[in-house]
Amino acid sequence: MRILVCNDDGINAPGITALAGELCSFGRVTVVAPDSERSAASNSLTLAHPLRVREVAFPANVEKAYAVSGTPADCAKIGLSTLLSEKPDLVVSGINCGPNMCVDIFYSGTVAAAFEGAFRGILSVSVSLDSYSPRADFSVAARWALKCIKRLVDAGVEPGRVYNVNVPAIADNEIRGIKVTRTGKIDYREEYDHRHDPYGRSYYWLKGNPEIVDKSPDCDIVAVKAGYVSITPLQPDLTDVALGAALEKMGIDDK
Amino acid sequence: MRILVCNDDGINAPGITALAGELCSFGRVTVVAPDSERSAASNSLTLAHPLRVREVAFPANVEKAYAVSGTPADCAKIGLSTLLSEKPDLVVSGINCGPNMCVDIFYSGTVAAAFEGAFRGILSVSVSLDSYSPRADFSVAARWALKCIKRLVDAGVEPGRVYNVNVPAIADNEIRGIKVTRTGKIDYREEYDHRHDPYGRSYYWLKGNPEIVDKSPDCDIVAVKAGYVSITPLQPDLTDVALGAALEKMGIDDK
Repeated sequence: MRILVCNDDGINAPGITALAGELCSFGRVTVVAPDSERSAASNSLTLAHPLRVREVAFPANVEKAYAVSGTPADCAKIGLSTLLSEKPDLVVSGINCGPNMCVDIFYSGTVAAAFEGAFRGILSVSVSLDSYSPRADFSVAARWALKCIKRLVDAGVEPGRVYNVNVPAIADNEIRGIKVTRTGKIDYREEYDHRHDPYGRSYYWLKGNPEIVDKSPDCDIVAVKAGYVSITPLQPDLTDVALGAALEKMGIDDK
Repeated sequence: MRILVCNDDGINAPGITALAGELCSFGRVTVVAPDSERSAASNSLTLAHPLRVREVAFPANVEKAYAVSGTPADCAKIGLSTLLSEKPDLVVSGINCGPNMCVDIFYSGTVAAAFEGAFRGILSVSVSLDSYSPRADFSVAARWALKCIKRLVDAGVEPGRVYNVNVPAIADNEIRGIKVTRTGKIDYREEYDHRHDPYGRSYYWLKGNPEIVDKSPDCDIVAVKAGYVSITPLQPDLTDVALGAALEKMGIDDK
């Protein structure tokens, strides 16, 4: 297996070291990651500025590692089109420090890097740990990520998708297994903190207080909170096909 | 109607002036837009820095206009949660200078701002003009956008979706009408230009040479090239539900 590994926490984050290290037992790994943290970058691209690419030392037995002055999606794009000498069999992004479930999938740079693989028909997996702690242990999540990947590869699943894996931050023997899920629903009940800087000028800072709206056991967030490793298959097309057909019947178009 | 208008080309872009001006005939408009161009921002959020918000003069008869030091998604979020005194009936984003069709939907800040409305169950519309010309005329697209919006409102369509409208850059009397479409498929055949700066250091710049892969007349890009105003309904959930059921049958999970 030839594997491209990306992330959004940056090339020096412990999550990507644990992930790439684990994947070295499964294939030939190339790492292409942002030179600094790029959380909540979504699928954003760097178009108004050029990208700088630097080959770097990496604390795992990977073939090569590159730090890129761009977003997670930039990293995956330049990896797939330019830095790798051949098309990989697998794109894996993570391990993110913090979960990527529910609507957060839309904001995630980790998931976005994996989508670059899915857009090109490559089996792609995003991996996130359900902990924001800077001292989180990624080794358990890395082993479960590899277990998920082996199962997906062995089953010969549809490659042009993102398999979004979220791992609970609990001990290995407390994990109840792997569960296929759908994207859950939370209400962030968002507000902005309105503050004033030392010069008296006002500024705003986003804060959220999420509440789980759909408590069905097949939702990603519910499964992870219950101790399962969650895998949600995500498609690279947002079209609401059923609604499109309904709109035609409602006479929205002029055909 | 109470209407929130956002964009990604920035508050001074001609597209948002034309759109907000046209919408003033349909409801009470508040504009919340980035203080500078934020193209290809996707759903990215500003979390590591605070947001600055400035009320500004605007060249149309809107209730209020705000410039925000953030992304299109930031603008919609702070508009919906903080700046507007009540929940709007409609979120409209655009008019983007350049189309947002096919896979570009994932990278678009214009579409992302509209998704913030859809996430909250509000009828949301993104509007883009199929021209990258800095001298493009947005008046025709603004009239067609309002025509689409009135038709969607009158039909009472599902509100928690993004209705992604793309308008061809042709004369009003050449437009063949409104067509409900699905997201098309292009292959960008991406590569990176590898260049050297005046100091001899290497850098990369993304370039693409898109080819239409699916030429079906119901694809957004095919409809717009044929002279139709395209409306694609987009859902705020990426789960591939059918694939999830298939994965369970394939024994991916441990249930």
